[in-house]
Amino acid sequence: MRVLGVDPGLTRCGLGVVDGRPGRAAMVAVGVVRTPGDADPGERLLYLEREIEAWLTRYAPDVVAVERVFADVNVRSVMTTAHATAVTLLAAARRGTPVVFHTPTEVKAAVTGSGRADKAQVTAMVTRILGLSSAPRPADAADALALAVCHAWRGAQTSRLAALAEGTRS
Amino acid sequence: MRVLGVDPGLTRCGLGVVDGRPGRAAMVAVGVVRTPGDADPGERLLYLEREIEAWLTRYAPDVVAVERVFADVNVRSVMTTAHATAVTLLAAARRGTPVVFHTPTEVKAAVTGSGRADKAQVTAMVTRILGLSSAPRPADAADALALAVCHAWRGAQTSRLAALAEGTRS
Repeated sequence: MRVLGVDPGLTRCGLGVVDGRPGRAAMVAVGVVRTPGDADPGERLLYLEREIEAWLTRYAPDVVAVERVFADVNVRSVMTTAHATAVTLLAAARRGTPVVFHTPTEVKAAVTGSGRADKAQVTAMVTRILGLSSAPRPADAADALALAVCHAWRGAQTSRLAALAEGTRS
Repeated sequence: MRVLGVDPGLTRCGLGVVDGRPGRAAMVAVGVVRTPGDADPGERLLYLEREIEAWLTRYAPDVVAVERVFADVNVRSVMTTAHATAVTLLAAARRGTPVVFHTPTEVKAAVTGSGRADKAQVTAMVTRILGLSSAPRPADAADALALAVCHAWRGAQTSRLAALAEGTRS
């Protein structure tokens, strides 16, 4: 399963592509899209949209995994994050690629075994799991890869359970 | 000045077009876009995008006025509102139409004289200002018209003040 992980944001949007199945994961690509804070909000979204569409075209993921964002102390940052999430949803819907959401807790638990792990621990585990020679930088890139790993592992599990449940019902 | 007011939402997105200048306003069109809550989130955004693009094409507004949303008790509703706002920003940016934001308080003050007016009062004044034979329904449609009136009146004022300030500086 090929997963494009997206850590949504307008100032920095982390993107990471992983090929994986439970217990195995290989990095295909990683990057960060940045848009200038003083640019027009609509122009920033257009730019992000073009970049995400380019990644979808280049890497043709089976699924896009996005971080589910909850309330934050900073309302403004929650809004721009939600805008970046909407752009991701639109771009994926346009080509029929499914989008799944994972909470930060799910991602941390998937890659470190603990939903309370800190950022350094997540980055360390992502680096180890993907066999990278150095930690992905910035943190948004590491988070996007962690999301992709999380879904490649959990998603497959969930699908298997759903298939089993389906089998039981039929 | 022709203004498309947008009361952003996914379940119901209010749209209202007004031709106006300070003290004068005429309704051109009003409507509500609804998307089913059980549909795929990306598909809902795509549908809303197509509708907003159709309104931009049909009515060619000079500017789009969107309600600036702050935190709400319901985090989920804030998120879908932010997603609808992002779709509006994208659609407008694609054709180079400027987008402005007004807070609910600004809108209420512009059409009723009080930033603390309730919904019924706003609807009553929108109906009166636009010379409508009956109140626009649902509330989202009235809110979109109120936004458009607010910008046609305040926006022109702001532009005039900006021009005066510019004249003073030069």
